[in-house]
Amino acid sequence: MAHTNAQKIFKSAGAQAVLTEQPDLRKYITGIETSFGYVLTTEKGTVFYTDSRYLEAASAALKGSDITVKQFVPPLENILKNLKEVAIPLSQTYYPQYERLKEAGLKIIDSANAFQNAMIIKQDYELDYIRQACKIADDAFTALLPRIKEGMSENDLAAELEYLMRKFGASGTSFSTIAAFGKNSSVPHHETGTDKLRFGDIILVDFGCKFGGYCSDCTRTFLFGDDKKHEEFKKTYQSVLNAHMLVKEKTVCGMTGAQSDAIARDYLKERGLDKFFTHSLGHGIGVNVHELPMISPKSADVLKNGMVFSDEPGVYFEGNYGIRIEDTIALLNGKIESLTNTDKNLLIL
Amino acid sequence: MAHTNAQKIFKSAGAQAVLTEQPDLRKYITGIETSFGYVLTTEKGTVFYTDSRYLEAASAALKGSDITVKQFVPPLENILKNLKEVAIPLSQTYYPQYERLKEAGLKIIDSANAFQNAMIIKQDYELDYIRQACKIADDAFTALLPRIKEGMSENDLAAELEYLMRKFGASGTSFSTIAAFGKNSSVPHHETGTDKLRFGDIILVDFGCKFGGYCSDCTRTFLFGDDKKHEEFKKTYQSVLNAHMLVKEKTVCGMTGAQSDAIARDYLKERGLDKFFTHSLGHGIGVNVHELPMISPKSADVLKNGMVFSDEPGVYFEGNYGIRIEDTIALLNGKIESLTNTDKNLLIL
Repeated sequence: MAHTNAQKIFKSAGAQAVLTEQPDLRKYITGIETSFGYVLTTEKGTVFYTDSRYLEAASAALKGSDITVKQFVPPLENILKNLKEVAIPLSQTYYPQYERLKEAGLKIIDSANAFQNAMIIKQDYELDYIRQACKIADDAFTALLPRIKEGMSENDLAAELEYLMRKFGASGTSFSTIAAFGKNSSVPHHETGTDKLRFGDIILVDFGCKFGGYCSDCTRTFLFGDDKKHEEFKKTYQSVLNAHMLVKEKTVCGMTGAQSDAIARDYLKERGLDKFFTHSLGHGIGVNVHELPMISPKSADVLKNGMVFSDEPGVYFEGNYGIRIEDTIALLNGKIESLTNTDKNLLIL
Repeated sequence: MAHTNAQKIFKSAGAQAVLTEQPDLRKYITGIETSFGYVLTTEKGTVFYTDSRYLEAASAALKGSDITVKQFVPPLENILKNLKEVAIPLSQTYYPQYERLKEAGLKIIDSANAFQNAMIIKQDYELDYIRQACKIADDAFTALLPRIKEGMSENDLAAELEYLMRKFGASGTSFSTIAAFGKNSSVPHHETGTDKLRFGDIILVDFGCKFGGYCSDCTRTFLFGDDKKHEEFKKTYQSVLNAHMLVKEKTVCGMTGAQSDAIARDYLKERGLDKFFTHSLGHGIGVNVHELPMISPKSADVLKNGMVFSDEPGVYFEGNYGIRIEDTIALLNGKIESLTNTDKNLLIL
């Protein structure tokens, strides 16, 4: 039986009914992954309306839970009869759907806060999934290292890593793996391609996988052989690693996302590196690989126990090289616990 | 240089400006894949506003094209100054974004038709990408067969196939590979899991990959050893295959999606199998793995040269077995050409 959050969201939304069709929110509320369906919670209970493709699987998964599974028969208005108001997540609702519910005479209430407030704090079962997704990513990275050979392409490396994550039990990737060799590492979101690995190259790999519907996210930067041209790189690497570690040491409950971001940014500023740190320090991780809290210079999100996010300072020297060191971390019992854990001391293959 | 469709969409939308932020439409209009940015076309030309992560890569990819790349500086209103109207795709625009543009005093025009009418007919360069995505899927499936062994899990099989597609040049999958063993094949969208392959099992694999941002989609159903219990399955398999082939033979320009769907559905009906054919015959394929045209009992979409869609009749016997045979096909020069091409005669490993 899936763990469902239907009642939790219903109570928090404070509306006569909660209607949910967005894949990530549907996953959160039902505990299962589906590509189509409407979840409707009223005081009478929760029904998951889906189509023939999912009826059998959803019924089996939700047997004994507080959610009943029924076949969806269009139009949507059929399941909304006798309702006066409905809560939907406005920021994830397409304009025509909003208009349609309005035209059906329904008062619209925003359910976004109910979802955000619930999803930002991970429950134990969610942490278990994320821990498992992180462990699979760690194990896959460790198994990847002996497979890295001169002449392999970025695509080859990404293929190997994604294969290993799948083999170790992931249902898929959190996002398309970024593998960047040499100066490609200076592009924060480099499109993995056909460039081949040469002795002395910097390798940057940003990867993550899904387990039980939850994501992991990790980045490592390392050297494929030391061609003695990397003195500046090595020094900069240590600064980025120090910034990364300082965030883990100093981030505590009650701090804002901006304050946590500043731990890394200020450290890099003292070393003249802040202008090359061109993105946010981190982002929340859960059923989505990018969710709340935001860990950025402007984030007012207050950090609390149970939050999971990334710690990923990075510096980029256009046309030359880039360094990013990222772990998925959790704030638990007032302290940061790292959920991805492969060695971050500079690795030279 | 990327092939861009900026001017084509601008002319078709018939508005003072076209603003595009949706990833699939942004890919279509710019020719490159990015996860953030706004494309704005006016009579002065097209600007792609993106953030620091993509500036370097996007500038390089669009050098010499009709699109200029600039750093996006919030708020969005900055780039809309002096405009009186703007076209956006309403069906893919979240309600708050619509409201925001309204509040900025802009007249809103729907750009959805401009995109749909353009994207439904594939240009030569798009067909080339889809052909390549199909060839990679074919080659990967062929290379997978000798790797299928007793005791491997559904996850193992999916991992092998996704690895092979990646190795053969795919940038990723079109969707999470479905691998279903034995009675799991009776669930049209089975969640690939840990069940292990046994002698005599039916194997259903639904898979596809992306190349140059375009998708392929293919399904094969076959036997892992013949345990002599499969007489009914074999007979049904032949009926589904006949229905699949009949669609390729009889689908012509000017037919509606419903008429093409009926070719397979009527054939299966004559054999008492139509009630087990619980989904549509097919869907359009392009930058999205599900797009127009719809090939379903109610589809009024008129089929034309240059359209690419799936031909995937399937029958499902709950708790027993399922069969689906799918190719990505194109309507070209008035005839159907199959773009995925591995053998569909019943395979017994």
